[in-house]
Amino acid sequence: MAKGNVKVLGAWPSPFVMRARIALNIKSVEYEFLEEKLGSKSELLLKSNPIHKKIPVLIHNDKPVCESLVIVQYIDEVWSSAPSILPADPHDRATARFWAAYVDEKWFPTMRSIATAEGEEARKAAIQQVIEGIVLLEDAYSKCSQGKPFFGGNQIGLVDIAVGCFLGWLRVTEKTSQVKLLDEAKTPGLVKWAERFCAHVAVKDVMPDTDKLAEFAKLLAKFKAPPK
Amino acid sequence: MAKGNVKVLGAWPSPFVMRARIALNIKSVEYEFLEEKLGSKSELLLKSNPIHKKIPVLIHNDKPVCESLVIVQYIDEVWSSAPSILPADPHDRATARFWAAYVDEKWFPTMRSIATAEGEEARKAAIQQVIEGIVLLEDAYSKCSQGKPFFGGNQIGLVDIAVGCFLGWLRVTEKTSQVKLLDEAKTPGLVKWAERFCAHVAVKDVMPDTDKLAEFAKLLAKFKAPPK
Repeated sequence: MAKGNVKVLGAWPSPFVMRARIALNIKSVEYEFLEEKLGSKSELLLKSNPIHKKIPVLIHNDKPVCESLVIVQYIDEVWSSAPSILPADPHDRATARFWAAYVDEKWFPTMRSIATAEGEEARKAAIQQVIEGIVLLEDAYSKCSQGKPFFGGNQIGLVDIAVGCFLGWLRVTEKTSQVKLLDEAKTPGLVKWAERFCAHVAVKDVMPDTDKLAEFAKLLAKFKAPPK
Repeated sequence: MAKGNVKVLGAWPSPFVMRARIALNIKSVEYEFLEEKLGSKSELLLKSNPIHKKIPVLIHNDKPVCESLVIVQYIDEVWSSAPSILPADPHDRATARFWAAYVDEKWFPTMRSIATAEGEEARKAAIQQVIEGIVLLEDAYSKCSQGKPFFGGNQIGLVDIAVGCFLGWLRVTEKTSQVKLLDEAKTPGLVKWAERFCAHVAVKDVMPDTDKLAEFAKLLAKFKAPPK
């Protein structure tokens, strides 16, 4: 579906960049993917997102749109004739925005803190909190999907994209921290949902391989570590 | 404008609660204001917002909507025939959502940190950051309003509500920290905008008096302090 010139400034391991790419895939919008390099920021990125200087940035007809959830909603509104990402009903839309904000503000920061927790007690507390969050998301999935395959019903919606983009990093965290976070016994609905989400045609080519992502995580940790 | 039964669970000093009330005022929606008491949470609040247990909650026809920016967008979508809070153009909508997220995620947390900063250096750094944020908002105001009275143009929009609700606390911070944050010399556009916003018919009855809010801030600090 063509509607002007579309570019995404991003990087393959970023869950936030994935959101923009999946939304464009759902809408069958072709785009140019401009990969930012680890440790440097392109002139185009600095010019397009001067406030946060962060990926992703969607550039549509030379106008930048920043912040992943803002981008997904923008894509949904511009290519409105293709499958909808947000539900039609205002209360369902509010519920979708609520859960998308929850994963960004509460759940993902806690998952990220597992790797950086100081001491075994803090690490265990973080793991426990992440699992509690997953249980909440299982309940939200059950209510939002109403027996259908996705949070968005029969198709991928805002919450699918918001949660699903963290699956790669969740698996890396499971692997490196040797802990089970997404557990068949506790959250059977989400386990099946995760399989469906990763296999979806709009997702599978942008969902990173866990081993490759784990390698990148090592590189990132090295990169962020203070020089000795 | 009637469209079912509307309640707001809130408290008068909360900037986030103000957002819901202003949005309802813009739409001329009558609502029942159920005031939560400092230090306790009503059964209705716990039932309506079990995830965050926080105000504001909008209850519309017995269905709760949580998170202030989600509530404002919900109100805009349900009472869509009244003046719009979000712009019609998708790029303008994305810009409005971007700035609303900026004030919540970056600017307000920094302003709040002025009062809790440990040491004069940290306090000065926080003040500097807040002022830099206000300069960014002045620029955003100039671009969004295009010479009209509000971020939203001729009427109050999402960014007006998002930023404007912090004006009471900004004044309290100026007073208690004896520092000028909103400055005629640096940000003349925002100073005039703030006057217009506070005088607006949808705002003036819910914008708290600075002295009353400063008294509340003292009470809150006492309440939050660990027992001696």
